[in-house]
Amino acid sequence: MKTAFIGLGAMGYPMAGHVSKSHEMIVWNRTTAVAERHAGEYGTRMAADVADCAAADVIFSCLPTSREIDSVVDALAGRLRKGQLWIDNTSGDPESARETACRLAGLGVEYVDAPVTGGTNGAAAGTLTVMVGGSKEGFARALPLIELFGKKIVHVGAVGSGHAIKAMNNVMLAANIWVAGECLLSLKKMGMDLSVAFEVLNAGSGRSFASESLLPPRLVEGKWPLAFKLALLDKDVRIAAETVHEQHLSTPVMNLVSNLYTAARRDLGENADYIEVLKYMAKMSGEGWEG
Amino acid sequence: MKTAFIGLGAMGYPMAGHVSKSHEMIVWNRTTAVAERHAGEYGTRMAADVADCAAADVIFSCLPTSREIDSVVDALAGRLRKGQLWIDNTSGDPESARETACRLAGLGVEYVDAPVTGGTNGAAAGTLTVMVGGSKEGFARALPLIELFGKKIVHVGAVGSGHAIKAMNNVMLAANIWVAGECLLSLKKMGMDLSVAFEVLNAGSGRSFASESLLPPRLVEGKWPLAFKLALLDKDVRIAAETVHEQHLSTPVMNLVSNLYTAARRDLGENADYIEVLKYMAKMSGEGWEG
Amino acid sequence: MKTAFIGLGAMGYPMAGHVSKSHEMIVWNRTTAVAERHAGEYGTRMAADVADCAAADVIFSCLPTSREIDSVVDALAGRLRKGQLWIDNTSGDPESARETACRLAGLGVEYVDAPVTGGTNGAAAGTLTVMVGGSKEGFARALPLIELFGKKIVHVGAVGSGHAIKAMNNVMLAANIWVAGECLLSLKKMGMDLSVAFEVLNAGSGRSFASESLLPPRLVEGKWPLAFKLALLDKDVRIAAETVHEQHLSTPVMNLVSNLYTAARRDLGENADYIEVLKYMAKMSGEGWEG
Amino acid sequence: MKTAFIGLGAMGYPMAGHVSKSHEMIVWNRTTAVAERHAGEYGTRMAADVADCAAADVIFSCLPTSREIDSVVDALAGRLRKGQLWIDNTSGDPESARETACRLAGLGVEYVDAPVTGGTNGAAAGTLTVMVGGSKEGFARALPLIELFGKKIVHVGAVGSGHAIKAMNNVMLAANIWVAGECLLSLKKMGMDLSVAFEVLNAGSGRSFASESLLPPRLVEGKWPLAFKLALLDKDVRIAAETVHEQHLSTPVMNLVSNLYTAARRDLGENADYIEVLKYMAKMSGEGWEG
Repeated sequence: MKTAFIGLGAMGYPMAGHVSKSHEMIVWNRTTAVAERHAGEYGTRMAADVADCAAADVIFSCLPTSREIDSVVDALAGRLRKGQLWIDNTSGDPESARETACRLAGLGVEYVDAPVTGGTNGAAAGTLTVMVGGSKEGFARALPLIELFGKKIVHVGAVGSGHAIKAMNNVMLAANIWVAGECLLSLKKMGMDLSVAFEVLNAGSGRSFASESLLPPRLVEGKWPLAFKLALLDKDVRIAAETVHEQHLSTPVMNLVSNLYTAARRDLGENADYIEVLKYMAKMSGEGWEG
Repeated sequence: MKTAFIGLGAMGYPMAGHVSKSHEMIVWNRTTAVAERHAGEYGTRMAADVADCAAADVIFSCLPTSREIDSVVDALAGRLRKGQLWIDNTSGDPESARETACRLAGLGVEYVDAPVTGGTNGAAAGTLTVMVGGSKEGFARALPLIELFGKKIVHVGAVGSGHAIKAMNNVMLAANIWVAGECLLSLKKMGMDLSVAFEVLNAGSGRSFASESLLPPRLVEGKWPLAFKLALLDKDVRIAAETVHEQHLSTPVMNLVSNLYTAARRDLGENADYIEVLKYMAKMSGEGWEG
Repeated sequence: MKTAFIGLGAMGYPMAGHVSKSHEMIVWNRTTAVAERHAGEYGTRMAADVADCAAADVIFSCLPTSREIDSVVDALAGRLRKGQLWIDNTSGDPESARETACRLAGLGVEYVDAPVTGGTNGAAAGTLTVMVGGSKEGFARALPLIELFGKKIVHVGAVGSGHAIKAMNNVMLAANIWVAGECLLSLKKMGMDLSVAFEVLNAGSGRSFASESLLPPRLVEGKWPLAFKLALLDKDVRIAAETVHEQHLSTPVMNLVSNLYTAARRDLGENADYIEVLKYMAKMSGEGWEG
Repeated sequence: MKTAFIGLGAMGYPMAGHVSKSHEMIVWNRTTAVAERHAGEYGTRMAADVADCAAADVIFSCLPTSREIDSVVDALAGRLRKGQLWIDNTSGDPESARETACRLAGLGVEYVDAPVTGGTNGAAAGTLTVMVGGSKEGFARALPLIELFGKKIVHVGAVGSGHAIKAMNNVMLAANIWVAGECLLSLKKMGMDLSVAFEVLNAGSGRSFASESLLPPRLVEGKWPLAFKLALLDKDVRIAAETVHEQHLSTPVMNLVSNLYTAARRDLGENADYIEVLKYMAKMSGEGWEG
């Protein structure tokens, strides 16, 4: 099968690599050098222009936001043809997904939103969790391809549902990080050794993926790698906030967390890692994590 | 060793049972019938009066709040003697613990705060996590006794530290429950099957003990057992809120969660289970979890 | 000049009355009886169908939300003609206003958004404050007509600006009410006479229109009239929340207030008065305002 | 009558001046130079030591917090005598006031808490609002003295009530400032002229003392004088937060505002003016007020 992969970021690069082992692939990336490297590493072919990707039977996209998807669809639209499948691995917003699906359906192209979770490790190992929104048929067609990089693949509902649950997952992630940070800051200020605190908390009912896997390396070992941009997590939380606004729900905690992440992003900048919100949070209290 | 156990609640009852297998024990409970039952089941001796517990070498207490501890210390104070050890398994507040420790130290009695986590299952199995605040000596003396019902036992710091970290664990628990609820309510309203949602979320980075173990039985199976009183969790979160207030930290999420749990407690009543906050939360949005 | 007035609610009814004293007027209202009454009282003419209003030179509208405006524009669109002026006194949302203005401009009709504040008293007296969004020309044309019911009339900016500042005014109103309520509830619980509390607070720096004019009749005299529907205030606050979301601002207080008003609306129902949020707030604390 | 005045800050200095016109006065201030200046300006006598103030019949105190009051009471206690009256104009906390009153009652000294509002202008003009907590007798004795600098003087309840309502006034002030700031920031970002915005908002139902008197000079004229320290307002809001915590109320808005003011204080420093929170707030959104 002829495939195309648009967007070779930290996640897209290895995902495209996995698919390319089983299928012919053309790749495109905004920064050309990365696409060249991919072609060298996996034997994929670099698209001269993003619109060349329209030649494939199946088009994957994995871009920062739904806005970039819109631009790419604009670029390809004139060359798309009936019967193609578009698998969008972007963490986008549900409403945009519904509009894109509608637009592509008008061209005879099936669209599924299929955002992933599992980090760069999971992408490298091909063990990502993939949440798919789309028709039954779309899901059935996409499944064997997604299986090339995914381990747990779930059809969660109609188009947009994948984006919706991804956004909600990231709200939970964001909130779990923040509240754990507030608690740990208090324990630290009271003189407790944080490695001891984690030992207890991670054996307790307040534990989360955040407290078990994400916070100890930063707060105990003092290592603050750039794993996932705060700017992207802020975007995801805002997608969720927009969804609940449209639903007219009362979600005070989600909204507060969203406002705090936006404030942290403004303070830490567009290139900060998401866990660095803890630095912003400590600063709100006139404290720090060192020492 | 002669031991006493004051407070045979859902946790204290089996904890006292474990200790009594290795040590002579006198037990006291506000509702006498429970103490009688304990005596029958484990061969412990029922105290005629709570003050009789002062005869033991080691006194355990496991009561609802620090207020009840104060009353019990009042009752026993006249009969306490140098060299005794008091192990307080209550989820109390750090400041009260420091005051109690100081008062008991004046009588030559060593006090450690040693709240537990792990639920009634863990109490029955003797596999609780126990976080101990106190001196090194106090911890060393208490350890072999706590090992009779605890699996992970950690000396977290000076007197009060056990209570402090227990309170923080419960803040994280409370927040993780609430924010997961907000997200799930949105997904439900959008038509998603919650069992599918949990399948995805619990494979994702937003997962927590709450989303994995606590919410699915309620939201998928519709079973709402009384496992732990909301009133007690509200108390614990308020202990944490008081601690950060004294520390003059800025903890907006913890405080919001605290206010929401208080409101839920007012609405649901003193006998509601803590996970029922999700019902209150849904009502805030004019929604429900049924169907 | 031939005028039409669409929407004879608590505000629109007297506003239309004022305009009709200087200009020929056709009126329309969803509930026909109200239009009949207006015709009787002011000598206006009842429209047989809302579309008949398209015959006027100037069309006023004063409806619950932008959604109703959309429907009315749909109904009239076929009969509108170049050179007409549409003055929309609805408290609507800025984005809808821009879309409506654009649509009407296509028909040669000038649109200004001109929401009002000042309550039913101000409407009766013709002393409303009117905030107008639109072009300079639109404002200049609308001004002499708005002066028939307005006292302070301000051109705040381009189309949509009137709605925007009205929404922000109502956020401030909503927040000032809520926080005053939290403070007064605490003072009441501490045994203070609320009439004494208002005497002090309204001489102090924390005073607001809410604390001076809105709360004393309810909390001191126990009179809870229906002055303005909570459902409409919730709508206005949500318009503001959507605006700041689009602007990507961090506005934690506005969002919290929005969530609380939504929760209060769910609890109190669609016909509750806006100040009744204080009853909901007291219930969150297990308290009440009586006695 | 022999009087003493302890604490010649921005408020205390002119207040003491007014009283000294009718009564013999000894003054004390931490920074001696200020007391010297007062003696020169009003003919008061500078105390060699704070304890010398115990010689007066009536002792006024106007210090930053209840903590300083405790120290001063410690210093004077040995020399106090039956029949003296202590008028405490500090913005302190209710619980400390009750403890101080109790301690002084043991020495036969009557204590009333009498915090003031009205700013340095009101203090200079002798037109302050004074909220008095204490017994009927205490109030009756204090009234003619307080009238020397106060215009509206209200007996609000038992000891501590003055502090309580002062704290609540300042919560309302703090919240009204913050929420107005959020709204104005949005209007500014949308291109609105803030002087136009104030013209409308201050004719509308969302207006408050903050929006009418405090914000326009800063946001329109760009003048940011130091009128009242943010650190002191943060302290007052925290007193209120502690009060509602003890009352076990659910006050989400007050608590959020408290956390935000603490964060602003950490960021802006101990010498910032309270209205500068708006700068912090704008920074949370990556915005500013200039231009």
